[in-house]
Amino acid sequence: MCEDKKKEIERLLADSLANAAPEDLNVLENLLHGIKLKQNKQSRTYLNGVLNYQGQLTGEKTYEAEITLTPFALNPLNIVHGGITAAFCDTVMGTLVNKILPDNQTCVTSELKLNYLKPAKGSKLICKSELVHRGNNICFVTAQVLTEDHEIAAYAAGSFFIIPKPKHIQK
Amino acid sequence: MCEDKKKEIERLLADSLANAAPEDLNVLENLLHGIKLKQNKQSRTYLNGVLNYQGQLTGEKTYEAEITLTPFALNPLNIVHGGITAAFCDTVMGTLVNKILPDNQTCVTSELKLNYLKPAKGSKLICKSELVHRGNNICFVTAQVLTEDHEIAAYAAGSFFIIPKPKHIQK
Amino acid sequence: MCEDKKKEIERLLADSLANAAPEDLNVLENLLHGIKLKQNKQSRTYLNGVLNYQGQLTGEKTYEAEITLTPFALNPLNIVHGGITAAFCDTVMGTLVNKILPDNQTCVTSELKLNYLKPAKGSKLICKSELVHRGNNICFVTAQVLTEDHEIAAYAAGSFFIIPKPKHIQK
Amino acid sequence: MCEDKKKEIERLLADSLANAAPEDLNVLENLLHGIKLKQNKQSRTYLNGVLNYQGQLTGEKTYEAEITLTPFALNPLNIVHGGITAAFCDTVMGTLVNKILPDNQTCVTSELKLNYLKPAKGSKLICKSELVHRGNNICFVTAQVLTEDHEIAAYAAGSFFIIPKPKHIQK
Repeated sequence: MCEDKKKEIERLLADSLANAAPEDLNVLENLLHGIKLKQNKQSRTYLNGVLNYQGQLTGEKTYEAEITLTPFALNPLNIVHGGITAAFCDTVMGTLVNKILPDNQTCVTSELKLNYLKPAKGSKLICKSELVHRGNNICFVTAQVLTEDHEIAAYAAGSFFIIPKPKHIQK
Repeated sequence: MCEDKKKEIERLLADSLANAAPEDLNVLENLLHGIKLKQNKQSRTYLNGVLNYQGQLTGEKTYEAEITLTPFALNPLNIVHGGITAAFCDTVMGTLVNKILPDNQTCVTSELKLNYLKPAKGSKLICKSELVHRGNNICFVTAQVLTEDHEIAAYAAGSFFIIPKPKHIQK
Repeated sequence: MCEDKKKEIERLLADSLANAAPEDLNVLENLLHGIKLKQNKQSRTYLNGVLNYQGQLTGEKTYEAEITLTPFALNPLNIVHGGITAAFCDTVMGTLVNKILPDNQTCVTSELKLNYLKPAKGSKLICKSELVHRGNNICFVTAQVLTEDHEIAAYAAGSFFIIPKPKHIQK
Repeated sequence: MCEDKKKEIERLLADSLANAAPEDLNVLENLLHGIKLKQNKQSRTYLNGVLNYQGQLTGEKTYEAEITLTPFALNPLNIVHGGITAAFCDTVMGTLVNKILPDNQTCVTSELKLNYLKPAKGSKLICKSELVHRGNNICFVTAQVLTEDHEIAAYAAGSFFIIPKPKHIQK
């Protein structure tokens, strides 16, 4: 079955390459590179791989990440798709909470609010997040999305529900 | 240059296929199928293609869409990534506004709010949106995200700023 | 001590009456009438009394209320103060949840979102709320604020955390 | 007519005083004191007067205010009413924007989001706000609500639509 699937995948790629505009080639390279990052466990999710997401704690309650902007992240107006910004913020804020929680806990998003302040463009997007409050059940986090010129493009705030970590994802 | 890029892309795919788990194969097929939908202009954005997004007006002020859930849309807990739900809602609500506005206008997201009510799972996700208010500058829209069993998984509300449509995307 | 306080209160009122514009008289009458409603237990809070708040369940998951608009509720632009609309919605949505919960539970607001769609004016404001989802920990509610002409003035959504009801407010 | 109204107001007060619990006396004193602040133009609105609202700019883009907590501000659980917190934040953030805008402009709230992080109690509430972004049409502001012990009780974010200032409120 796997061999048939592989053949089908190769056929799909050949098809795409035959009709590919330069933009399509960029996106194809980008997506395949992202899959590889996930396969190598350098990315936690396919989405992170595809966005070339890289992040790190920058303090006790702060975490920062960036993604590479390719045509995959743009909307028909050629600015960053609001949904990509939202997905980026959700990942950043959830990851911050995860890193702060003890090993046997994780979190799920309870609510998320985005304010889009400026059209986002350029080669990358940065997100800086901060844990504002850690309650018994909920962690409340804010984040700023910045362009490569460090101008604020969006503002996010979210509540993350603390839950026991399922065994299959405990290290 | 294009030929080099194509070679690189084929190399990346071969690499991925060599080490692919069944889940990786599903995602690869899914992503390549999505690119093709964008190339054939059946999808407006690469993201829509990848999510296999399909939508339509269902009334004067209502619009409904669905996406196919593949491992690409999941988070490490194996439920739909909050960011994918957010991106889906943003697309659905923005598309509704676009369809209602006259041909020389379009919109950008001003603010977006999501409430995640239940973990979303299954083979697809449905989103039903409604224009609540059309102002001079802003359209306000709400949406419900439903699982394939028609249980509510998330609730969204957003404000969309009306702007003149740039010439390059006018038909 | 009470007698001194009463004298002071009478002095404050005499002072106000001596310099009262007609608008001030309306507000004074309004506030004193509100206190009386609270004293008679016709209102649950002083704020409800002052706003002349009246509400009732209109279905299994829906609740509706109205308030009288006096100069107390207006901002310097002579439209309803956004904060009064917010307080009204918070009360309506929290009351709906309270009425649906069993006797030994109550709720506190976890998060509240308001979209102001039109300047609110007129003699009263109506709020219609609906329970969208009842989870184990959180109830999610939406509400529409309408003018006396039944035009939508604002839209609200809120999450209410379910907690055990303290003994002192159990009947 | 005014004289009749004054008689009615005095009658209402006498009535309230006759049956007043100590808490009622506090609220009466508080409300009448608030009316006086509005009459003397020390408060911009009756609501500000009643809450004993006092605020000031603390920087180029920051503004801070406090209110006195009396039983008027409490809900049946004896913690600050979520609606009072919302009204306080809306006033603080709107006032900040007003103070930053030129004399011929003012603003109305477009959307407001509150996260309640801790039950608020004590003798006063503090709100510190910051202008995050000033766009052409919208100012985006965040605020933190603190107890008298400087613990964070709530977090607010709001969008304020910039409008021409009506003549009647221009100085």
